Amino acid sequence: MHLFRVWAPGPERVDLLIGGRVLPMVPGEAGWWELEVEDAGPATRYLFSLDGGPGRPDPRSAFQPEGIDGPSEVVDHAAFAWTDRAWRGIPLAGSVLYELHVGTFSPEGTFAGAVGRLDHLVALGIDAVELLPVAEFSGDRGWGYDGVDLFAPHHAYGGPEGLKALVDAFHAAGIAVVMDVVYNHLGPAGNYLPEYGPYFSPRHKTNWGDALNFDGPDSGEVRRFVIDNALCWLRDYHIDGLRLDAVHAIVDDSAVHLLEQMAAEVKALCASTGRTMFLIAESDLNDPKFVRPVEAGGYGLDASWADEWHHALHAALTGERTGYYEDFGPLSVLAKALKQAWVYDGTWSQHRRRVHGRPPGDLPGDRFVVSTQNHDQVGNRAVGERLGALTNEGRLKMAAALLLTSPFVPLLFQGEEWAATTPFLYFTDHPDPELGRAVSEGRRGEFASFGWEPEQVPDPQERATFEASKLDWREAQDHAGMLDWYTRLIALRRSQPSLTDPRRESIRVSFDEEAGWLVYRRNDVAVVLNLGGGVVSVSLGGFERLLLASDSGVEVSGDLVSIPAGTVGVLGR
Amino acid sequence: MHLFRVWAPGPERVDLLIGGRVLPMVPGEAGWWELEVEDAGPATRYLFSLDGGPGRPDPRSAFQPEGIDGPSEVVDHAAFAWTDRAWRGIPLAGSVLYELHVGTFSPEGTFAGAVGRLDHLVALGIDAVELLPVAEFSGDRGWGYDGVDLFAPHHAYGGPEGLKALVDAFHAAGIAVVMDVVYNHLGPAGNYLPEYGPYFSPRHKTNWGDALNFDGPDSGEVRRFVIDNALCWLRDYHIDGLRLDAVHAIVDDSAVHLLEQMAAEVKALCASTGRTMFLIAESDLNDPKFVRPVEAGGYGLDASWADEWHHALHAALTGERTGYYEDFGPLSVLAKALKQAWVYDGTWSQHRRRVHGRPPGDLPGDRFVVSTQNHDQVGNRAVGERLGALTNEGRLKMAAALLLTSPFVPLLFQGEEWAATTPFLYFTDHPDPELGRAVSEGRRGEFASFGWEPEQVPDPQERATFEASKLDWREAQDHAGMLDWYTRLIALRRSQPSLTDPRRESIRVSFDEEAGWLVYRRNDVAVVLNLGGGVVSVSLGGFERLLLASDSGVEVSGDLVSIPAGTVGVLGR
Repeated sequence: MHLFRVWAPGPERVDLLIGGRVLPMVPGEAGWWELEVEDAGPATRYLFSLDGGPGRPDPRSAFQPEGIDGPSEVVDHAAFAWTDRAWRGIPLAGSVLYELHVGTFSPEGTFAGAVGRLDHLVALGIDAVELLPVAEFSGDRGWGYDGVDLFAPHHAYGGPEGLKALVDAFHAAGIAVVMDVVYNHLGPAGNYLPEYGPYFSPRHKTNWGDALNFDGPDSGEVRRFVIDNALCWLRDYHIDGLRLDAVHAIVDDSAVHLLEQMAAEVKALCASTGRTMFLIAESDLNDPKFVRPVEAGGYGLDASWADEWHHALHAALTGERTGYYEDFGPLSVLAKALKQAWVYDGTWSQHRRRVHGRPPGDLPGDRFVVSTQNHDQVGNRAVGERLGALTNEGRLKMAAALLLTSPFVPLLFQGEEWAATTPFLYFTDHPDPELGRAVSEGRRGEFASFGWEPEQVPDPQERATFEASKLDWREAQDHAGMLDWYTRLIALRRSQPSLTDPRRESIRVSFDEEAGWLVYRRNDVAVVLNLGGGVVSVSLGGFERLLLASDSGVEVSGDLVSIPAGTVGVLGR
Repeated sequence: MHLFRVWAPGPERVDLLIGGRVLPMVPGEAGWWELEVEDAGPATRYLFSLDGGPGRPDPRSAFQPEGIDGPSEVVDHAAFAWTDRAWRGIPLAGSVLYELHVGTFSPEGTFAGAVGRLDHLVALGIDAVELLPVAEFSGDRGWGYDGVDLFAPHHAYGGPEGLKALVDAFHAAGIAVVMDVVYNHLGPAGNYLPEYGPYFSPRHKTNWGDALNFDGPDSGEVRRFVIDNALCWLRDYHIDGLRLDAVHAIVDDSAVHLLEQMAAEVKALCASTGRTMFLIAESDLNDPKFVRPVEAGGYGLDASWADEWHHALHAALTGERTGYYEDFGPLSVLAKALKQAWVYDGTWSQHRRRVHGRPPGDLPGDRFVVSTQNHDQVGNRAVGERLGALTNEGRLKMAAALLLTSPFVPLLFQGEEWAATTPFLYFTDHPDPELGRAVSEGRRGEFASFGWEPEQVPDPQERATFEASKLDWREAQDHAGMLDWYTRLIALRRSQPSLTDPRRESIRVSFDEEAGWLVYRRNDVAVVLNLGGGVVSVSLGGFERLLLASDSGVEVSGDLVSIPAGTVGVLGR
């Protein structure tokens, strides 16, 4: 016996299609339809027909075993045999995140495959993985930002059972699971929501077209759809936190913004379950409102990505100045990022041709997630090169040292810890040939303006593009030096309370733009790095203990630390 | 000698056209062009030609003596002989505002005509007039919301000299001047801004099309254009406050919203001039953020209109339930409005088909402007009837009593004080016949869906429609009873500190939905009104002094007050 329910205020008739049967649904309150079916239950596959039209998946489908156009499958969340009863979540402050794309992290490309690599993550010492979106999207391969069945873990990854098994195994190993979720648009294929009801509205536009209807007539159920989705992952899948994609495109003029409401409901769920769960926004608006408490007029989210920390570091290390990197480069800009995560705080941005942002004020460091690499910064390049392909080992070690000694929440990108040479390319698998062609051509066109020839840009639709993006785990052994560097830095961070202290007040950065050295001090730890050509000797009163060095040439002698070109040292008092 | 300056980053050539001469402007920094002209000065008329095109008015034109398509005229603001040196502005808290449309307030329809009626306003006792927008708009007649030369007082009203003379005269009489300004769109005729630069952007849409570019590339000068406009009125015209039209359509995703920046710059101007000046938002979002202080995550505006106070009262008094009035009507809803200005505070709105608003929290009453009638509530009706045409004198007196004893900032609409019978219709004067026809047809179409026949809806383009909207000043004598009621209520408000106290905590409202009576208590004043059919006797412990009564039948005897049907009394302790 199973009670089927669906919100469909649009159609005048809704039928439930089960195994050749056409069962009329019963209209209920406020656009909801219901039907109890005696011989249905877990594993039953079904579709809805709207006004006699073709079968469509359930908007809240828990599983799409045959993909976005196939039937939905009933899932009984209560049936999973969880073993993580003792798990109570982790605090975001002090944690190290690890961004992981299920399809390319392991050779298998599945949830189970990721579990198979758990030992590596435990040895590395990270606190949480952050999965790129797993909601069912078009085809078998993709980054995940084209999801259309928001409640359904992708069938190619292992579906609901696979995801639960992953979370359970990670929790058993003491690692939290954060998930990337997309609430600003739906993918270009398989989005049947508009047939059901006013999920979208022309009132606001985004880069993807009509925005989701979060503030127009009948937006109440659309808000519930999205918030229930967030709660579903946290409650039914024991997920520990969500990373909300591109919140600037979640347009809501309501007096209570969707994100504020979501944060309040997640806090209530934390209280009722006794678990710590958090929400992280991806935002480039440099606006503290997302992470300010509600009492201070904010939305009360726990943290926000701060990509400018990345840009400042990337530009300083690589010398790149194209695109948005034109706003970055000097050590003075890097120094500002090291202190306050984002750089543009009410100052003129040449790239944006306007003033951007406002100061973070006294927000603590754990309100910001920073990285030296991530799926976007690597994958949105024409040929998906990681930082290692653009610079050298010494500079990679500098990046890691600054990342893992920061007052912010560090996020690693899969393979970064061993300086993986495999790219992370943009890949898709749209079965619709027209859409596939459009995506391939769009990608080529995007980079043509930067001087790339069409044949130089890997075709997202080709399976080889996906395969090339898979991690090569032999490199984890071959690049043992880098892996050791990351492992020791993470261990240092865990062992030194001053490094996980989110207060930013004590940070001091000094540098010589011409000579190319930079000293970053925070509480009782200092990082010294040399981007210049010769040996640098700097006096660091009180920092006499060399904790970590990227090179044996780094030496401390009394007050003086001497660092050869291209090296970095971490010192204690 | 005069220095002409214009921001025009679009064109590659800008020429200054003066008396048949074509003088090439000199490109300067950041899209600005300059030219000093020896024989130009105050009263010089000029146009700009962009890339050799036809002459266009200056975007910052101070005067358009021949209308929106004619030449701009140089104005020397310093030359006006101000006599208001002692004027330091008024506090919004405690004040009574009076909304005034220059074209219809006096028979002359000019700034000077309004000055001619100053004695009436002084006798009435109001603290400030609020002028409907005066910026140059298409034609000679209009409400003013179609302005396109935002720095130019309308030529038909008397231009810059006329406005300054009005402000100077009003200040001499102790009355402040507030002005309605429109920063969410420009009118449909005469908007040449897009030829000059990126004043608009397709990034955001409003009901009027592309939104003004407040957050895209090169938005810095567009923000300056608008903020400089606000400062110009306050500084060069000695205006005391601005009412910002429809702020929900001022779309700005910047971390510092345009309105927050404007409020900060106005506060700085207050400090540097030693004058009190304020900003009032028109908003129906029921979102406290507009008027919360910046320290509490708000924009720091001084007050916001709260139209729902009007709707709750209007629906209770008239029984109307069409359109947005479907959300209002019961005395319980009116009671909520009397306590907190807006009604929908996170509650379900049937008309909007969604949850709307959030509670005003502990915001004081002076953060809200309320009215029983205003240009929109009267003028947006098909035949522009005032409240008096929909109900009777007793109920008008009830409305006035509730308005002028409220903790909010009361706003009267011109003629309301004598229960004017003249309508306030929607009128325009677009010289462009095609636009004129579209406006006429649009108006008819708008009301066709409410069952109005085309010939019943006055044609906005007809001069008669405008003439019919002019106040009939003979009525001020004929309706002396109502005028006396308003005058005495305003005098009472001024004489009783408890009535101007903006704190809302002490408000108590009791009512009987069936019997139709309502008692509203606040500090040491109580208002008792009877919407029912029979005499009502209520016990008001401690309120034994009858301060004002709409009818001699209202009587107090010991603890009991007795109010006949259709009457209202104001009592003190």
